[in-house]
Amino acid sequence: MAQIHPLNSDSVIGVFDSGLGGLTVLRELERQYPNRSFVYLGDNARAPYGTKGEATISRYAKECANFLLRHEVGLIVVACNTVSSVALTDLSRDLSVPIVGTIEPAVKSALGCSERKKIAVIGTNATIASNAYERAINELDPSVTVISKACPLFVPLVESGMFDGEIVDRLVELYLGSLKAEAVDSIILGCTHYPLLARSIQKFLGPEVTIIECSVAVADAIRPYLIQNETQSDIPDRLKFFTTDEVGSFNQLAQALLNGAKVDAIRVENL
Amino acid sequence: MAQIHPLNSDSVIGVFDSGLGGLTVLRELERQYPNRSFVYLGDNARAPYGTKGEATISRYAKECANFLLRHEVGLIVVACNTVSSVALTDLSRDLSVPIVGTIEPAVKSALGCSERKKIAVIGTNATIASNAYERAINELDPSVTVISKACPLFVPLVESGMFDGEIVDRLVELYLGSLKAEAVDSIILGCTHYPLLARSIQKFLGPEVTIIECSVAVADAIRPYLIQNETQSDIPDRLKFFTTDEVGSFNQLAQALLNGAKVDAIRVENL
Repeated sequence: MAQIHPLNSDSVIGVFDSGLGGLTVLRELERQYPNRSFVYLGDNARAPYGTKGEATISRYAKECANFLLRHEVGLIVVACNTVSSVALTDLSRDLSVPIVGTIEPAVKSALGCSERKKIAVIGTNATIASNAYERAINELDPSVTVISKACPLFVPLVESGMFDGEIVDRLVELYLGSLKAEAVDSIILGCTHYPLLARSIQKFLGPEVTIIECSVAVADAIRPYLIQNETQSDIPDRLKFFTTDEVGSFNQLAQALLNGAKVDAIRVENL
Repeated sequence: MAQIHPLNSDSVIGVFDSGLGGLTVLRELERQYPNRSFVYLGDNARAPYGTKGEATISRYAKECANFLLRHEVGLIVVACNTVSSVALTDLSRDLSVPIVGTIEPAVKSALGCSERKKIAVIGTNATIASNAYERAINELDPSVTVISKACPLFVPLVESGMFDGEIVDRLVELYLGSLKAEAVDSIILGCTHYPLLARSIQKFLGPEVTIIECSVAVADAIRPYLIQNETQSDIPDRLKFFTTDEVGSFNQLAQALLNGAKVDAIRVENL
């Protein structure tokens, strides 16, 4: 593992995602680090990423990261499992600041609580096709059985505001039926949209299955960089938002996801 | 209405869509005009359009149209209801070739078969929010009642290969329940993906409701431009495909939609 150099106390943390899902990560980051400033970029004009090819996803990810670098961030959090799965290695190599994705933190968290060593991973088509989770789990513990399942309709469900109800339950049943039959002991929600469907997922799998959300794991994973964290205070414009699509619906949904925090995003046409 | 100048017999027809849905239009066009050549562009790397803002959709539409013009098309068919709804007027003004969208042809077709003058329109969020269908119908016949409904999950359903079954039926019921209660006599499928869900829609609404698909209406609408159509024959490379995302999945799905026709798309990274 590369040596970790803590950030300056006034360094801004950049966070990006294909759209709104990454706000579930931002919510946890800003809760855990109230003295840090954040810049969030949602590439809504090209969302979702999870249905697209690797070359396209890698290109978009580089453009997002470079946009954040132009805003002088000291650390980049990839709040998108699809990007973390297919493009993180390339990004890490090219960037001048440290970069933290979702996979490694979520995997460590899952391994810490898996007792029967049967872990389920759900995500977008691109995330599951990449095998990134399975590889990361088995690198740390080859004895773990990993059962993966792509759930392509979960992102559109969330984006259309459907978080529960009969249709959500039927889709959860359709996608997770085979995982339940395998008696997994934990499930990684390998997409930042999925925590919004956690209630239905938990209901279907039962209380004995532990749900691993990336947001908490990612917030824990950046702590080593934030050793000098607690010196700053009273920060104006602590949260800054950018989106590549229209700001109206972004602000509305972001405010709802961030428990009513004021969101006043700036539109950027080209990254 | 502007005067129509028929195309040269060897003029190529350009067709574009945000992704794969427009292939339902291309299928009908190439069936009706076997002696014409077509260039199809699917902007899969930025699909879907229907969840995005008007400014973004307009920008993408212009880039798609300009790409087709660089391939020397003599006519452009916008095989995308979202673009036709929010960007067609701007496009028509700026382009040097005629452009045909989906709205006017579908509306004329619906008015021709509506007896009780109660027409339903379903489409993406952007299409329905634009009111383009309602306006076009009431311009031609103010006495018609138009009932519109956005069905945001239909596109992801189709893109994930779910064309029928219980989940499709439940979503059809959810979205179309209010239209059924209004006893509409016809329904415009205002999105080029939706014909793939027609069976479930017809089953739910009953055989007395007429389903209007854009593809046939659009194919009829371009006939005036093709007066000199039938002179060409034995055309090599009659269908040319471009996509902004990876070609593998595009070719596979396009071949299925085009009844097995060989599809060998070329990837273009930037439009």
